[in-house]
Amino acid sequence: MNNKVYNLGSTFVVGVDLGGTKVRGGIAGLDGRVLCEIVEATTPAAGRDLVPQLSGLVSRLAAAVGYDTSAVVATAIGGAGIPDADSGRFGRAPNLGNLEEFSLVSDLESVLGHQVVLENDVNIAALGELHEGVGTQHDSFAFVSVGTGIGVGLILDRQLWAGVNGGAGEVGYLPFGADPLHPTNHRRGPLEEVVAGDAIVRRYREYSTPTTESVIDAAEVFNLAERGDVHAVASLDEEAKWIAFALVAIDAVTNPGLFVLGGGIGTRLELHEPVRAWLTRLGHPEFEIVVSSLGSHASIVGAVRLAIDLALQPREREAS
Amino acid sequence: MNNKVYNLGSTFVVGVDLGGTKVRGGIAGLDGRVLCEIVEATTPAAGRDLVPQLSGLVSRLAAAVGYDTSAVVATAIGGAGIPDADSGRFGRAPNLGNLEEFSLVSDLESVLGHQVVLENDVNIAALGELHEGVGTQHDSFAFVSVGTGIGVGLILDRQLWAGVNGGAGEVGYLPFGADPLHPTNHRRGPLEEVVAGDAIVRRYREYSTPTTESVIDAAEVFNLAERGDVHAVASLDEEAKWIAFALVAIDAVTNPGLFVLGGGIGTRLELHEPVRAWLTRLGHPEFEIVVSSLGSHASIVGAVRLAIDLALQPREREAS
Repeated sequence: MNNKVYNLGSTFVVGVDLGGTKVRGGIAGLDGRVLCEIVEATTPAAGRDLVPQLSGLVSRLAAAVGYDTSAVVATAIGGAGIPDADSGRFGRAPNLGNLEEFSLVSDLESVLGHQVVLENDVNIAALGELHEGVGTQHDSFAFVSVGTGIGVGLILDRQLWAGVNGGAGEVGYLPFGADPLHPTNHRRGPLEEVVAGDAIVRRYREYSTPTTESVIDAAEVFNLAERGDVHAVASLDEEAKWIAFALVAIDAVTNPGLFVLGGGIGTRLELHEPVRAWLTRLGHPEFEIVVSSLGSHASIVGAVRLAIDLALQPREREAS
Repeated sequence: MNNKVYNLGSTFVVGVDLGGTKVRGGIAGLDGRVLCEIVEATTPAAGRDLVPQLSGLVSRLAAAVGYDTSAVVATAIGGAGIPDADSGRFGRAPNLGNLEEFSLVSDLESVLGHQVVLENDVNIAALGELHEGVGTQHDSFAFVSVGTGIGVGLILDRQLWAGVNGGAGEVGYLPFGADPLHPTNHRRGPLEEVVAGDAIVRRYREYSTPTTESVIDAAEVFNLAERGDVHAVASLDEEAKWIAFALVAIDAVTNPGLFVLGGGIGTRLELHEPVRAWLTRLGHPEFEIVVSSLGSHASIVGAVRLAIDLALQPREREAS
């Protein structure tokens, strides 16, 4: 390991939260304090077009603190997918265009002239919670994000455990919810089929047919439930049930001691009483659960911390 | 941490595999090489009677290598239960008598005059696999023991992850198999109800009623299946199904990269083709699975390694 010595005042890292619609970047010194954030729309086709967009973002962030890209020593990017450390490619990332046919990491490193790392977005958010959220009080926890999908970032003894093939926390593949033996449920995963945001809408439509074709997203179902719509309440109760099942499974395998709920659906307070009720019915009233308070900031903080790790402990390179 | 300097030639540790019917102990130097093993029947009532039995065992092991108990610097004990690090008590250990009302660790430490640690038996076996089994080739794996119950020892990046409350790998509590919402399945756990050895016998009796009341253990069902008994084959296929479900759940949460099957049922080669077939139906033909080759020796090796860790990194003690 060739640990480098940096001039702290003029050395920076960049953390990026790369979403299907928005890209959010932050620049920080090696103490992890975020100095400036930039948010912009994701380039429409994503895929290879992300290379100029992201390198431009790094350059603009550096300019914002009075330097150029050469002052940045590492960039970490979180996105909805599974990184392959060997190839630098990003798998299972349907929202980010075609990232399977080239190495986003290698291409960005060529342009930027510093090390780049890709990580799953939920893992990045979990790292953010570790450094500036619940991690200030807890050494271990499972960050459970429920939104357009479900994913878990495992922090075990202050380390992110991402899995041998980057697949840890891919709890959408837990074998319950939809029929785990049916091949149509193998693509997104049996649990993801019943817990992702679109399942809330699908259930609401099933329960209330044929009057509610106009309901198009999960947020509307939450609104209807608030107004007392029994079908909306039932759809959300089913959502709470499957979240509770997921927590029980995560506990049985890893016993993380604390669950941190995140994501657009996971952070909805309306779900917490029903989740608690289902946990009691499942024999686990004792689980400790908190709601993430960092929001989208968790991702920037986590990405910045990962970039700092990379800067301080560079990857070993094969002789070329 | 007050790391001590030991005189290597005359310093030993003891590792114990404490079962409900047999106690197996091994003594080793600080290199982990087991010099002598003793196997004896577990004292009938277990509970407090384990204190004289285990201290006597340590003394006999020390004598076997030409020393007395004062040459032993740490003892580690693996048993079927969940240790509580704070109290030194051993919970959920119905096969070992009453261990809830006193601290086996404290009592043994008083008699032996050295540090003692208790650990779950499956975790101990996983440590054995790490040091002398699959761990020589793999940094991470899940050791899945199926016998009178089901339990998993998680080795992640060469570290045992036992969970925040010692409950990691208690996959009998996964929320499938028997109905996870029915309170009768909360004691042993929904998966344990259908995968433990007695479930094989129960299913066989159900399928073949009323002719087979004489079948009393799982080994007989394996024998009957070998002779072509369709009810026995069906019972074992159901067993394979639930083992496959467990592996899918473990992978979705931790992605350990490799499964090592252990235990009296898990190591039965007859189960492996059906487990493979169910994994394919579950969309996971790619899982890497091997059978533990260390057998009962894994527990001694693992306990000895844990005792060495304890000797080299003594627990911090509160000022008394």
